[in-house]
Amino acid sequence: MIKITLPDGSVKEFEKNTTPMDVAKSISEGLARNVISANFNGTKVETVTPLTTDGSLILYTWNDDEGKQSFWHSTSHIMAQALEELYPGVKLTIGPSIDNGFYYDVDLGEQSISEKDFPTIEAKMLEIARGKHDYKMRAVTKTEALDFYKKQGNEFKVELIENLEDGTITFCDHDTFTDLCRGGHIPNTGIVKAVKLLSVAGAYWRGDENKPQLTRIYGISFPKQKELKEYLELLEEAKKRDHRKLGKELELFTFSQKVGQGLPLWLPKGAALRERLENFLKKAQKKAGYEQVVSPHIGQKELYVTSGHYAKYGEDSFQPIRTPKMDEEFLLKPMNCPHHCEIYNSRPWSYKELPKRYAEFGTVYRYEQSGELHGLTRVRGFTQDDAHIFCTPDQLDEEFKKVIDLVLYVFGSLGFENFTAQVSLRDPDNPEKYIGSDENWEKAETAIINAANEKELNYVIETGEAAFYGPKLDFMVKDALGRSWQLGTIQVDYNLPERFDLNYKGSDDKLHRPVMIHRAPFGSLERFIAILLEHTAGNFPLWLMPEQAIILSISEKYEKYAEKVLNLLENAEIRALVDNRNETIGKKIRDAEMQKTPYMLIIGEQEEKDGTVSVRKHGEGDIGTITINEFSDLINSEINRTLKKF
Amino acid sequence: MIKITLPDGSVKEFEKNTTPMDVAKSISEGLARNVISANFNGTKVETVTPLTTDGSLILYTWNDDEGKQSFWHSTSHIMAQALEELYPGVKLTIGPSIDNGFYYDVDLGEQSISEKDFPTIEAKMLEIARGKHDYKMRAVTKTEALDFYKKQGNEFKVELIENLEDGTITFCDHDTFTDLCRGGHIPNTGIVKAVKLLSVAGAYWRGDENKPQLTRIYGISFPKQKELKEYLELLEEAKKRDHRKLGKELELFTFSQKVGQGLPLWLPKGAALRERLENFLKKAQKKAGYEQVVSPHIGQKELYVTSGHYAKYGEDSFQPIRTPKMDEEFLLKPMNCPHHCEIYNSRPWSYKELPKRYAEFGTVYRYEQSGELHGLTRVRGFTQDDAHIFCTPDQLDEEFKKVIDLVLYVFGSLGFENFTAQVSLRDPDNPEKYIGSDENWEKAETAIINAANEKELNYVIETGEAAFYGPKLDFMVKDALGRSWQLGTIQVDYNLPERFDLNYKGSDDKLHRPVMIHRAPFGSLERFIAILLEHTAGNFPLWLMPEQAIILSISEKYEKYAEKVLNLLENAEIRALVDNRNETIGKKIRDAEMQKTPYMLIIGEQEEKDGTVSVRKHGEGDIGTITINEFSDLINSEINRTLKKF
Repeated sequence: MIKITLPDGSVKEFEKNTTPMDVAKSISEGLARNVISANFNGTKVETVTPLTTDGSLILYTWNDDEGKQSFWHSTSHIMAQALEELYPGVKLTIGPSIDNGFYYDVDLGEQSISEKDFPTIEAKMLEIARGKHDYKMRAVTKTEALDFYKKQGNEFKVELIENLEDGTITFCDHDTFTDLCRGGHIPNTGIVKAVKLLSVAGAYWRGDENKPQLTRIYGISFPKQKELKEYLELLEEAKKRDHRKLGKELELFTFSQKVGQGLPLWLPKGAALRERLENFLKKAQKKAGYEQVVSPHIGQKELYVTSGHYAKYGEDSFQPIRTPKMDEEFLLKPMNCPHHCEIYNSRPWSYKELPKRYAEFGTVYRYEQSGELHGLTRVRGFTQDDAHIFCTPDQLDEEFKKVIDLVLYVFGSLGFENFTAQVSLRDPDNPEKYIGSDENWEKAETAIINAANEKELNYVIETGEAAFYGPKLDFMVKDALGRSWQLGTIQVDYNLPERFDLNYKGSDDKLHRPVMIHRAPFGSLERFIAILLEHTAGNFPLWLMPEQAIILSISEKYEKYAEKVLNLLENAEIRALVDNRNETIGKKIRDAEMQKTPYMLIIGEQEEKDGTVSVRKHGEGDIGTITINEFSDLINSEINRTLKKF
Repeated sequence: MIKITLPDGSVKEFEKNTTPMDVAKSISEGLARNVISANFNGTKVETVTPLTTDGSLILYTWNDDEGKQSFWHSTSHIMAQALEELYPGVKLTIGPSIDNGFYYDVDLGEQSISEKDFPTIEAKMLEIARGKHDYKMRAVTKTEALDFYKKQGNEFKVELIENLEDGTITFCDHDTFTDLCRGGHIPNTGIVKAVKLLSVAGAYWRGDENKPQLTRIYGISFPKQKELKEYLELLEEAKKRDHRKLGKELELFTFSQKVGQGLPLWLPKGAALRERLENFLKKAQKKAGYEQVVSPHIGQKELYVTSGHYAKYGEDSFQPIRTPKMDEEFLLKPMNCPHHCEIYNSRPWSYKELPKRYAEFGTVYRYEQSGELHGLTRVRGFTQDDAHIFCTPDQLDEEFKKVIDLVLYVFGSLGFENFTAQVSLRDPDNPEKYIGSDENWEKAETAIINAANEKELNYVIETGEAAFYGPKLDFMVKDALGRSWQLGTIQVDYNLPERFDLNYKGSDDKLHRPVMIHRAPFGSLERFIAILLEHTAGNFPLWLMPEQAIILSISEKYEKYAEKVLNLLENAEIRALVDNRNETIGKKIRDAEMQKTPYMLIIGEQEEKDGTVSVRKHGEGDIGTITINEFSDLINSEINRTLKKF
């Protein structure tokens, strides 16, 4: 008999060689129908793997990320079988699951695959799936494994196997298909009810451009047809909301090959958007007692050696900038904190003067491989809405709460209603991994948890997830498509005050170390604007829109009245434009809808006579004819609904 | 007989071997008394040099820069003689005139000079001067020259002479003193009536740290004692106004050895000052039709090769930034223009859409030798209030005038009343030196001159001073101490549009090149703030002051009333602070005066009872007791006097 511990802590006895599927059946028939993957003592196992020792077992269904990974990995075997049948002589290389689906890199020799071949492959895959073939793992010797692939002439698998140790090699069989595989499959192919190939691309063997080029086929699969349909709709919607596409359409930003990849150029409307976001936060920060500072975009290498950033970013990031005589070395700043520490250090402080809260929209530069760059979400230069709070340990509690208030104000004003928080604490079993005194850690962790409770955050605690220099609180925000984004980290830091020898004079007249809090509600303006674009599909909250209204004249005759309306709106601090082009009103409306301008004010003879405007709301249509004053009230009440007082 | 052309164009005949002094005498006795230096056919000559050919002669007095240079250079001979007499064995090296005075680098051997020795040296110099010794140039052979200094054991002069060609070597004698010298002296030592040694410092022979260290003695001299007195007073005042000193006292900025030399860190008050200046200009620029853009602080090396900046700055500036795999090279941007060209180039333009005016407070980085760095006036990173206007050649006239309006608005709002302009045109005799068509150059030069006339600028035309890529207009501003600063360049550019292949579709449906205007009214925020600090001694125009008022309570009893006054002021958008410290009112006033806070509002029992404040103006004293509303009106009317509407 063996003892199996389940995630809820309960322990059950089973006969030796019981499988995870047997355990599932012993719990409920429903679970047994849904279990598709398992983990035993921290290792992925098959649902049919015989368990031979005591241990902890986790059973996964489609609702778990681990379940999905097994599902998609197993589907890649089905695709590989289909490819072997449809493209004789195809050589398989590797086929992992990924965040959304799976891919397989294959060598097609003289053959090729394009999107028009997808339906045939998908049909073949579904035919295989319907056979309900079990996935069966078996151990093979290195010689057997090599023989198998040498016979096929597959030099890729041979290379993989040559790097493996004899005794650790396994194959997975299903139907007539066999693949080199470490395991982690669903029980049988029949669970896969819907498949969709998504794209085909070139990829180098082992990611090395000097090695052969392979064909990478991406796909995804689901246990229900309905789920595939929903996924494809989401994909379609995400494509429409792609911030790169919207950024171009709304003329927010551009990239230039000459300036360099990952270095956005902000066009006038985008620069104005950034500025509005900056002013929004600056205003709230001013009320919260922050002070703006300005620091350079470079610093001596020594500065980052002191801060520890050189050890972290130095080798893998932008290399040092030398001077003509080569005797000085500077780095592009990867973070603003070292500069702010030096600002703090520029004079002595008394405890009575703390906390000091230094804020800066600081542009930092970090090297990313060109393949990893993506629009504004992954760039090489970005502007953090950074701030560093220097306080006494006793002030930490209060300061942390104030930062949470600020973060929640930002989320609320920008339409992110759906978020959770994660509190990362140190591992109490490994105190030597962390710097700072026990007393301070306890103070800081208690401060964070108290603050999270008091602010009624929906949070989880992750023990052992703290950085070595302090505990932290992260926010995970769900966007309109249900995707999660990490925004707004608040991080306690005992390390930099030590490294920069920061201090203040306490009430005891002795010198003490301040605690530092790093925080950035947006994170980076670039990434935040990208997320906001995809979340709102470009329909930003009214207070943030580049133009809040556009005046569309029925004909050029009303140009003068259009100017008058524009002046009245500008006096009421409403951002507006006039479209006086010699175009039909239909064309003007279509263009304004395309630009997502929230309000279209149509003016003609009647409106001029009555001193009114006919208002059309973006995405909603006509909402009636009103006076400019009424329109101004309408705008202000909508702004007050979203942009709350801080 | 020879024909001498004078600066007014008149031509006079003189006998051969006439001297400049003779010419002066022939014009007027007054001129002869004052002439101290001369230039014949573009070459500096002595006032006693016999003229042997036809040519153009300019006679200089103390009022000309050239006259001052000769005066100070001649005084350095006097100092050298004094040093030889007081420090036997001293070895002279070089002793030029500089912007304000002169220096001599000498090798004192075992002896040394400190400031306490200055009076003795000055006395000896005046004694020599009073001898009214003529300066007499004589040609010597290389052998004679070498023999003279070898006999003295002066290896420095020997080294200098060895690098000269025989036949070009001259000595200058006066009294018992002889020096190797190219000439350019005042008639005799008696003209020097006042001398002052200013400082003593170490200097390496030929500026090379591997060569012997010499002693450099700085001095200045004047034809009248009164002028020396005025100069020393100015020096004293300049010291008080030194922006580095004021920047520290007013807590505007700091430097950190760790961050690096020449890289200012802006403290909260300084950052707020910058921001106010930025907002002031942004507001005016918005009205003038500019659009803000944002670009990164680096760009691929290729970008600057295209722009030509790499050829100009590349070798001598911050070296390229490589990436870990070394396959990419980026440069810190030395200028914003290449980025703005790429922004312009991100889409096609029609002539109907021009001009485009892209503005950016863009921080640029240029390497300066550490010895050349000076506070905020010479830094390694600075923020330009940059903008680039892309327009059709026909729009140049109008655009240029608008830029002048903006520059004049900036000068007027910041208290720079005293300025002149310089129009730099191309050299019509060397058209091949310039790029762009004759027609465009004519258009641009006419546009600038018309604009300067229409705006009634006090300007001079400098032919041949244009850059190869376009004509320009520079403003020279005089500060409160009478020192001149170049601020506000407006530059036409035909080069970058060509290099970046910029174009627009004209009314003829063909592609044309736009013209570019570069302009920066402040130049750089760093340098501008430094000049403004020295010009105003920290008493900025009221609209720009970090704090416009400070509320000083007589005792802690009035804390509540102080808060009430503060709130009222904040509602009236007046920047104010409360000083509630437990200090005497006298101490509070002294501290506020030190911080240059324009208005001190003193409150006690009577003020609380009456709802008033007792107002004290910085540097003026008590101006009476008034209500908050009256005070708010006072502030607003003062702001309206300086910060005009644009």
